[in-house]
Amino acid sequence: MSAEMLSVEQAREAVLARIARLQPVRVELLESLGCVLACDVVSDIDVSPFDNSAMDGYAVRAADTAGASVEVPVVLRVVDHIAAGRVSSVRVGPGEAARIMTGAPIPAGADSIVMVEQTESLENAGSTGGTVAIHRAAIAGDHVRLAGEDVRVGETVLHAGEVVNAASVGLMAALGFAQLDVYRRPRVAIVSTGDELVGITDIPGPGQIRNSNTYSLAAQVLAAGGEPHLLGIARDNEADTRALLERAPEFDLMVTTGGVSMGDFDVVKDVLEQIGQLDFWKVAMRPGAPQTYGTVGGTPFFGLPGNPTSTMVGFELFVRPAIRKMRGFTTLDRPRTLATLAEDTRKKSDRRYFMRGIVEPVETPPPGAPSYTARLSGRQSSAMLTAMHRANCLISLPEGLSQIPAGTIVECIRLDMEEGTP
Amino acid sequence: MSAEMLSVEQAREAVLARIARLQPVRVELLESLGCVLACDVVSDIDVSPFDNSAMDGYAVRAADTAGASVEVPVVLRVVDHIAAGRVSSVRVGPGEAARIMTGAPIPAGADSIVMVEQTESLENAGSTGGTVAIHRAAIAGDHVRLAGEDVRVGETVLHAGEVVNAASVGLMAALGFAQLDVYRRPRVAIVSTGDELVGITDIPGPGQIRNSNTYSLAAQVLAAGGEPHLLGIARDNEADTRALLERAPEFDLMVTTGGVSMGDFDVVKDVLEQIGQLDFWKVAMRPGAPQTYGTVGGTPFFGLPGNPTSTMVGFELFVRPAIRKMRGFTTLDRPRTLATLAEDTRKKSDRRYFMRGIVEPVETPPPGAPSYTARLSGRQSSAMLTAMHRANCLISLPEGLSQIPAGTIVECIRLDMEEGTP
Repeated sequence: MSAEMLSVEQAREAVLARIARLQPVRVELLESLGCVLACDVVSDIDVSPFDNSAMDGYAVRAADTAGASVEVPVVLRVVDHIAAGRVSSVRVGPGEAARIMTGAPIPAGADSIVMVEQTESLENAGSTGGTVAIHRAAIAGDHVRLAGEDVRVGETVLHAGEVVNAASVGLMAALGFAQLDVYRRPRVAIVSTGDELVGITDIPGPGQIRNSNTYSLAAQVLAAGGEPHLLGIARDNEADTRALLERAPEFDLMVTTGGVSMGDFDVVKDVLEQIGQLDFWKVAMRPGAPQTYGTVGGTPFFGLPGNPTSTMVGFELFVRPAIRKMRGFTTLDRPRTLATLAEDTRKKSDRRYFMRGIVEPVETPPPGAPSYTARLSGRQSSAMLTAMHRANCLISLPEGLSQIPAGTIVECIRLDMEEGTP
Repeated sequence: MSAEMLSVEQAREAVLARIARLQPVRVELLESLGCVLACDVVSDIDVSPFDNSAMDGYAVRAADTAGASVEVPVVLRVVDHIAAGRVSSVRVGPGEAARIMTGAPIPAGADSIVMVEQTESLENAGSTGGTVAIHRAAIAGDHVRLAGEDVRVGETVLHAGEVVNAASVGLMAALGFAQLDVYRRPRVAIVSTGDELVGITDIPGPGQIRNSNTYSLAAQVLAAGGEPHLLGIARDNEADTRALLERAPEFDLMVTTGGVSMGDFDVVKDVLEQIGQLDFWKVAMRPGAPQTYGTVGGTPFFGLPGNPTSTMVGFELFVRPAIRKMRGFTTLDRPRTLATLAEDTRKKSDRRYFMRGIVEPVETPPPGAPSYTARLSGRQSSAMLTAMHRANCLISLPEGLSQIPAGTIVECIRLDMEEGTP
């Protein structure tokens, strides 16, 4: 690694140190799914709010059923029939039972439930005034769900900083929260730069290509939980570039591709030096060594290199963790899988390579070997998207090595798995 | 397992055998992210469409640079300055070079690129008419990206059945596809049943609880890539229940909770028998043994049990794979992780248990042991959502066992990982 190059870790730390969590925003309950809670959720009720039956059956006094069996049943008089949602006004006395449905409140006097399967309906047992034969002795508390069993009044059920999952949504609904505060999704402006670019529905003329980077980036922003805003193409002239880049303060984050290398027509760099506070880095990595980071009008700004794969890898390593930090997440790294490299690989030794690869489980790995293998997903030119499209990981090949033989244990960044997955 | 019970696999197969993939729908490019392609994508262009420079530098004739070094440079005359997006009308002749930017078309006559770092600007080298010193001999093809290197005209770049990722979006943009055909997301109607339910912003009266199942289910539908439609609460009377359930044909799928057990007030079952073709199953599992599956007016219908955790587990095991099948996915199972059970566990032997649990990696597992442990995430009552909320897996404990000691190797269904993750 030459003196003026930053390591991937140095660049990442420098970026993240200057990225802050966004302000909380109040959202509808279902919109909170997958977001980070910005507040504790404290229950003002017991869940469930009252003792209730876990079964369809009969509410009884356990003492009355002592010794009951199929051969020698205990016969009780049915004094009520309690549906879920209804509170019985009847007290179950000695020799009495109440027909009861799952979820219905336990009537006064009763201390246990006998499942309907362990009873026999005698005369009109389902209705008040009938009789029922009990085939099994109950123990006090049988099939009774106590008030507050799941959640107690005053209990902090969800904590600021945790990620809302489907069960949290259910819990919050049970506690009466129709809205709640989460860290919001950043609005991310995307700008592609270059006179060679045409829109995706245009037919490229001689020397032109379609603007694909805006779309791959927008998809990556969506996948990271951000809100992409496609600002279009900045042409290689100062007025055009400035007009788009000056819009940064309308957004939480701006990402550009291209225009920050050593090319004579790269006006982005000139404009940025006028309107923003930027660092232009060479990071010891391939693809994507030139990376720009800073602020424009106070908004964090990422200048990614223009080759399609360099753009996507730069996003993965620097922008995705930044978006997650803005969203309040504390786990900012994709899971890593150790794998045995399946093929000989060459690289320059002065930088880390992030090869596009496919990681797969091995049926029976040799003792001590990882339980995965990793192979390249295609040709590794940074201009080529096909290998990225087939990849489920980035194979991280460290600085200092140039020949990496098959059989080497390598670390794979799992593009197919979310951060925080153990 | 008693004779009339279905195994989990039997129920799942019976369900999936009757679920069909939905019709393809044409969507905007970015909306296709995460969906299954319904068509092959064939390129009508080469990508890139023309030979172009991989570097900022000088386009040269390699033969002219033979023997060049820092000490003995070769001096060439600069005949053009080619930006990306512009085609040079000049032919590079013997003794000549063209200044060229990354991505710009290689000019006629030149066969290789010398990086700007390996040149020295002499007189006005950046402009036509200047001169440049070349410090290194080029080999024909150096830093030239050939037309069609990534994609050839006529090549099938993406195949029907594959899942669109961010790089596919970029590829399709490069090929000019602003829209494409994917299998669409099912519209899923959600109905909760029961007189005991009130809306989530209501204060529950005596014997009442809030309708949380609609929201946990809606969140699960969203997470599975479906489109939830919340139809509200069906009361325990035939008219109300019928009015909601008869709406099934407006949707691709209907899911209800509650109302299909043995309770005397469960009118859902009666209504379903009138308006649909349904099977009422007892599945050898806990939570969630009673499961209803069939069609109402031709629309697939799932009747899930009403306990909050039973609802969610039933959704995971039966509805989520159905939604994925409708969306065109062929991988319908969440990844499974083998783990060492961390605590003694008891269950009934006649059915499989899906315990709510937390799976975690082990730093240095004993030889032959799994590299994960699994422990319960809280109390396992099916009425309780707190353990589900803390869980990242369902620990699958098989039929036939009742005492499962700590140290047993168990299978965990990873709720934190997507289907198709190796």
